Amino acid sequence: MSRPSAPAPLPSVSNSITIRLEVPAGGTAVGELTTIVERTGGLVTALDVASSRSDGLRIDLTCSSHGQEHAEQIADALRAVPDVEVQKVSDRTFLMHLGGVIETAAKHPLRNRDDLSMIYTPGVARICTAIAADPEDARRLTVKRNSVAVVSDGSAVLGLGNIGPHAALPVMEGKAALFKSFADIDAWPLVLDTQDVDHIVETVAAVAPGFAGINLEDISAPRCFEVEARLRERLDIPVFHDDQHGTAIVVLAALRNALRVVGKELADVRVVLVGAGAAGTAILKLLLGAGLRDVVVCDVDGIVARERRDADPTLAWIADHTNPAGLTGGLRDALPGADVFVGVSAPDLLTGEDVETMADDAIVFALANPDPEIDPAVARRHATVVATGRSDHPNQINNVLAFPGVFRGLLDARSHGIDVPVLVAAADALAGTVGPDELNADYIVPSVFHPDVHHTVAAAVESAARALDS
Amino acid sequence: MSRPSAPAPLPSVSNSITIRLEVPAGGTAVGELTTIVERTGGLVTALDVASSRSDGLRIDLTCSSHGQEHAEQIADALRAVPDVEVQKVSDRTFLMHLGGVIETAAKHPLRNRDDLSMIYTPGVARICTAIAADPEDARRLTVKRNSVAVVSDGSAVLGLGNIGPHAALPVMEGKAALFKSFADIDAWPLVLDTQDVDHIVETVAAVAPGFAGINLEDISAPRCFEVEARLRERLDIPVFHDDQHGTAIVVLAALRNALRVVGKELADVRVVLVGAGAAGTAILKLLLGAGLRDVVVCDVDGIVARERRDADPTLAWIADHTNPAGLTGGLRDALPGADVFVGVSAPDLLTGEDVETMADDAIVFALANPDPEIDPAVARRHATVVATGRSDHPNQINNVLAFPGVFRGLLDARSHGIDVPVLVAAADALAGTVGPDELNADYIVPSVFHPDVHHTVAAAVESAARALDS
Repeated sequence: MSRPSAPAPLPSVSNSITIRLEVPAGGTAVGELTTIVERTGGLVTALDVASSRSDGLRIDLTCSSHGQEHAEQIADALRAVPDVEVQKVSDRTFLMHLGGVIETAAKHPLRNRDDLSMIYTPGVARICTAIAADPEDARRLTVKRNSVAVVSDGSAVLGLGNIGPHAALPVMEGKAALFKSFADIDAWPLVLDTQDVDHIVETVAAVAPGFAGINLEDISAPRCFEVEARLRERLDIPVFHDDQHGTAIVVLAALRNALRVVGKELADVRVVLVGAGAAGTAILKLLLGAGLRDVVVCDVDGIVARERRDADPTLAWIADHTNPAGLTGGLRDALPGADVFVGVSAPDLLTGEDVETMADDAIVFALANPDPEIDPAVARRHATVVATGRSDHPNQINNVLAFPGVFRGLLDARSHGIDVPVLVAAADALAGTVGPDELNADYIVPSVFHPDVHHTVAAAVESAARALDS
Repeated sequence: MSRPSAPAPLPSVSNSITIRLEVPAGGTAVGELTTIVERTGGLVTALDVASSRSDGLRIDLTCSSHGQEHAEQIADALRAVPDVEVQKVSDRTFLMHLGGVIETAAKHPLRNRDDLSMIYTPGVARICTAIAADPEDARRLTVKRNSVAVVSDGSAVLGLGNIGPHAALPVMEGKAALFKSFADIDAWPLVLDTQDVDHIVETVAAVAPGFAGINLEDISAPRCFEVEARLRERLDIPVFHDDQHGTAIVVLAALRNALRVVGKELADVRVVLVGAGAAGTAILKLLLGAGLRDVVVCDVDGIVARERRDADPTLAWIADHTNPAGLTGGLRDALPGADVFVGVSAPDLLTGEDVETMADDAIVFALANPDPEIDPAVARRHATVVATGRSDHPNQINNVLAFPGVFRGLLDARSHGIDVPVLVAAADALAGTVGPDELNADYIVPSVFHPDVHHTVAAAVESAARALDS
């Protein structure tokens, strides 16, 4: 958190540690340990006595911290207590990732020769023969029916940048775990030892027969556009770059509901979109596909307009399809009178005064992560609806709301592709999970743990995909 | 079964069907159904009353058959019974493969925001950062630690030939199920939409960062040699072509024990090896690595000898490293006086008279599948120890005895490669699972369900791999 205006973040469970302590009998009161941790700024979430002997206790103290440095300060504070011995400091997140967060499972027990002869040889030969006669049967008789490859080259991972395939793997298998938990999809991570577009395309195309869908992830722009376009051209299964389309779906869903809150229509509003990278471009295309007519896009050089004569083909496309009023200049030239601000760009671009220049009942989606384009507390003083990418504010725009249901629907439809109407259907279904009685300025998107959200999105996507394929 | 001399095969559970029947009350006695199936040559394994009403019974009759055509004959015979209605004929092997035989599992429940923040964002970023600082940590903090890619281009699948990637998938996921069931390894099938050596190598190299081992499978010779050699050169994880090395390990193990039975030493015997493809070449190299000195290889053109001046580099290598007596001619010129015959070639190459020309206490491994080089019943009249690749005879040479333990050991050693000493260690450990009190001419290899076999192989491989890496 670099901004001085931001409040100190709360200790986070994602920085949770467990400290094993030996405490002598009759020494420091156990209750005092909690006080010491809290005085250091930690938040005690559990205090378990692992064993008790006549001469003392072994205690596992679990607490949330602000991060690694803070965790060490907490351990040091406990070390400073007379007679208390700090034995081991374990990081709960690291413990959870030890050996990975996913595994495979055999669906049938393999107990004897009979099982073996059906799962493997000689029985499996009959399954092979059936598929050789009709390759489409692979979607019935193999794991292909339900499997998605989560593919990354590690070039644009979270906020961490180009960290390479090995370091990207925990994100991809975390995603695979989410696919299973939220949508019962069998996803496997494939992290690639190449960042060359041709090599990525050739690799994914080669492994595609075993999968019913490809989820591209954390591939940097502009390479991600070409990778996706070429794979969609080449493969007979859906290819979905989550950083683009997952984000776009949730933004459209949130915008639909935000507009319901303020009583405006998508076709009538003016949107200022800041950021023309992977997410920004996808958001733009989806909003246009959903009926938006007036949108102005800004990048680091200001308003994207025909006058700029950008050489980049994406920017040229944007100039041709946006900015109907022919605005020029910077963000502050675009903003006055705008109904909606959507930022997928950089921290601290916007002030409260800027938001004040927008139309009445302004909507501000400040989605730069982890630090938004404007402090949401400030934005809320000037706008009616505010959303961010953060989990510690209301209205979190989170891809996890979209991708499990989207792929569940695509797999159920045995879809051979994906297109804008499918993405719009997903967004509309997602928006619809917030009922009229629930909808308000602080609740425009459901929780990812909402019991219906993934099923509802899946059903809408399945239906739209079948219509598209037929 | 094309050979007229072979006995009719038993009905096999791999061709097992379940027939749903409606039988009227007071009609045909249920017991008669079993008689009808058995008269048609089927073997009833279960007869379940699914529901009983006053006017009749619904019965699920499960029986083994000789194959699809025979299954239809059985159903027809039941249809011919007055009042019996055949409702549905289900194939148990197909039912088992419906939707595939493997799936993924999330190791931790994903119940709430705290779980999400540790498995996925924001907590996962700390795992990524740790691995970015030390990529070797991927073997500790991700699924890489325990995962193997089962890779095939579908060019030489079982006895089915070049059936392509989709039709090969059931074998590869069956193999993944075996990896999990026998050795708790997380294997994922990758079937490739290419049979070009460069494309295969580039694809496997690209996906390698997410795996701790590569199991190549059912790739035809001679491409498999180049694919394996180039991947071993390029990757820092073990690459193992199971059709070659898995087979070779089990052959060496079985030969060790067969020689114990007849009281001969590997260094002293003469072996005739028929077949110079993937399996034959690997068997040759492993036997030489284990101490065999006198071996003669035959291919379709007869004895491989320097005089033939074969252009193929594999055959030239074989000519240089075998046949110390300089024999020429055909198989029948090589066989007289030989102690061991190993065939990985074609059906019906050998007669009982041929075996009779071998040395006393001859050993015959007739491994062509499904029809061996000689009817094992005939071979047994002239040789002391006979082994085949078939499960309906004693001494089945089955790769399943090797690959789970081999990879378990390689993963446990965090091995960066694999070499002959590791394969020999695996074979010796496998041979050692047959105790002196168990060993006899009909029991030279253990069952794949032997409780110790995979652990024992794994421990030996781990130890050998650590020695090799250090």
